[in-house]
Amino acid sequence: MATPERIPAERRRRRPTRNGSLLSAETITEAALALIEAPGGNALTVRRLGAALGCDPSALYRYFPDTDTILLAVADRLIHDSLEGFVPGGNWQDELRDFAQRLHRSMLTHPRLAAVRASRVTTGPAEAHAVDTGLGILLRAGFAPDRTVRNYRLFVDTVLAQAAVDAAVLDLDEHRREQQGAAWTTHHAGLPAGQYPNLHRVREHLGLMAGSAFPEILETLIDRFAAQLGPEG
Amino acid sequence: MATPERIPAERRRRRPTRNGSLLSAETITEAALALIEAPGGNALTVRRLGAALGCDPSALYRYFPDTDTILLAVADRLIHDSLEGFVPGGNWQDELRDFAQRLHRSMLTHPRLAAVRASRVTTGPAEAHAVDTGLGILLRAGFAPDRTVRNYRLFVDTVLAQAAVDAAVLDLDEHRREQQGAAWTTHHAGLPAGQYPNLHRVREHLGLMAGSAFPEILETLIDRFAAQLGPEG
Repeated sequence: MATPERIPAERRRRRPTRNGSLLSAETITEAALALIEAPGGNALTVRRLGAALGCDPSALYRYFPDTDTILLAVADRLIHDSLEGFVPGGNWQDELRDFAQRLHRSMLTHPRLAAVRASRVTTGPAEAHAVDTGLGILLRAGFAPDRTVRNYRLFVDTVLAQAAVDAAVLDLDEHRREQQGAAWTTHHAGLPAGQYPNLHRVREHLGLMAGSAFPEILETLIDRFAAQLGPEG
Repeated sequence: MATPERIPAERRRRRPTRNGSLLSAETITEAALALIEAPGGNALTVRRLGAALGCDPSALYRYFPDTDTILLAVADRLIHDSLEGFVPGGNWQDELRDFAQRLHRSMLTHPRLAAVRASRVTTGPAEAHAVDTGLGILLRAGFAPDRTVRNYRLFVDTVLAQAAVDAAVLDLDEHRREQQGAAWTTHHAGLPAGQYPNLHRVREHLGLMAGSAFPEILETLIDRFAAQLGPEG
């Protein structure tokens, strides 16, 4: 999952850690994910990572130059997991839907990494495979290469951005999440008509504001792409 | 900007702080914004806020029950600033563009608050005013109340989500930001055709991946709304 080509192989001799396991980019990534998702909040530091792996923190630098690189390796590993078992087939619309829903689900399963995944380029093998897969869906749908890249960017950026917001909401404590979900009907719907005439006019429908826009943004994108291909697409 | 109705007025007597200024929801919000945007990284704690304002940290609880409430008050204040001077007029498409670009610009100006603004409901007066303004644009465009709410949610969630991603990229240190912007042409474009056939096929266009999808997602939404209104909209 990580990008081991960045550290020369001779510096990455595998030797057992104090607890007897072999150190590798994979075991480090695995332990880093567990620390990021620690119940009390993200606990990733090189010192804690060393403690969790039973090795001196300095040993980690043979695999990753800094915590940011570890973070990107973890993100890349989650991209890998999210697309495992994805088999293109069926029409391009269904493929895009499946692709988007897998990314969205994976972001919600790992909310503390969602912001990183939405804003960073991992340059890892899983990201390259995911981009290649997404581009392939659009190329097979009939888009020219430049339009394929443009649409893939619009598609993946929008999906990841919305997933990151949904993940942030999910990562709130339950009380706050419920409170802000209800605020549209308990607070905004009751604001005075004189000062907030438009809110007042649509007050019966404000419950719609609480849910995620993800399903609708996904169909908006697919509709746009279909219109570009024309009726025979 | 804050929501002072949450704390009974008799507990909010204004008394001068050690440095002689009067404590108020506004001065607290102002000082909190400065701490959040401290050069070394977000430094907002109640202790530091008390130190910055020259008052005992416990005095802040007369205005805000916790730091989360302060954060929402700061977010609400930035919503206020972003729409200052916004005057509806012209056609609804231009109004939506102006509205969206103001939110986007404000998120990029205050990147450390962008994730909060994209995922939280402030229930403050500026948010209520902003929602009322956005709903008004769509109501005047001719949408029915339920469709207005649906479209406003799609519009504002998508704009804020994309702005949060753009802000996160902008908040990276310069080296990382440039490195990942260039990665599409320096890394992905050079991947082997055998393993990544689709990336290879569109490699000349991968530079398009680096920029923000914001302008295109904005036009995608406006086009969708226009199509719903039909040719006479």
